[in-house]
Amino acid sequence: MIEIERKFLVSSEAFKKVSKTSTRIVQGYLNSNPERAVRVRIKGEKGFLTVKGKSNNTGTSRYEWEKEINVVEAEQLLALCEKGKIEKIRYEIPSGNHIFEVDVFSGENQGLILAEIELNQEDEPFLKPDWLGKEVTGDIRYFNSNLVKNPFRFW
Amino acid sequence: MIEIERKFLVSSEAFKKVSKTSTRIVQGYLNSNPERAVRVRIKGEKGFLTVKGKSNNTGTSRYEWEKEINVVEAEQLLALCEKGKIEKIRYEIPSGNHIFEVDVFSGENQGLILAEIELNQEDEPFLKPDWLGKEVTGDIRYFNSNLVKNPFRFW
Repeated sequence: MIEIERKFLVSSEAFKKVSKTSTRIVQGYLNSNPERAVRVRIKGEKGFLTVKGKSNNTGTSRYEWEKEINVVEAEQLLALCEKGKIEKIRYEIPSGNHIFEVDVFSGENQGLILAEIELNQEDEPFLKPDWLGKEVTGDIRYFNSNLVKNPFRFW
Repeated sequence: MIEIERKFLVSSEAFKKVSKTSTRIVQGYLNSNPERAVRVRIKGEKGFLTVKGKSNNTGTSRYEWEKEINVVEAEQLLALCEKGKIEKIRYEIPSGNHIFEVDVFSGENQGLILAEIELNQEDEPFLKPDWLGKEVTGDIRYFNSNLVKNPFRFW
């Protein structure tokens, strides 16, 4: 299906006070090409395989296919991935009718915090919490598939 | 799991007389790199997503992970694949305790016929039918992930 998402920097850690859940994520790429990214993710105790297509012009919408997979198999697939892994803690923060997913990166991307919101249409209005910073939707540097090759600490 | 397979050219079409089933296969690659090949296959009415790792030194064994997926989703993923598709008819031919899978390629690989046998160990003996030609196990030119980029008709 097509996912519509907007992505933001995060200007303070105030989001942690309102977060309901936090989950550790480790992911790698069987292909980090953004036209056909193939991602292996371990999120908490679960494994996922995800394929993403090219973004539209605004960088807001993108084809995405995802399947939950066995976590032991996910570990095996992670071992086949391109060099470099993404490690982050994901916080989920309800906001109006939406949920912000805030990723606090560690490892080579330490210092980076990104928030994403999934929308039903590109121009759908949504609440902007105080801790939400500059929008970076469509900025390819902030794609996780780029962060694995070109981590934040080397910017 | 680790798959152990040997691959052969086919010297005559006599195998068709002993084949029990034939199925049309169309496949493409989300990554054709043989160290982490990601294959999307439609086989008959079914869809499959397969990840293969690097071969061992003899080219006989290789990590392989496969999941059946929805065929409509498989069509969507095929559309994201690298340029070039493999089209072939697969014949299954029982032979002793084993099954030969014989692929008759069409499209850009017309004229190529390959037989594969899956073994439980590298040195396991097996019957060699009359129609079996030269062994090409480990010859990277005959990898399907290579045939998609460098098809047989251009050799």
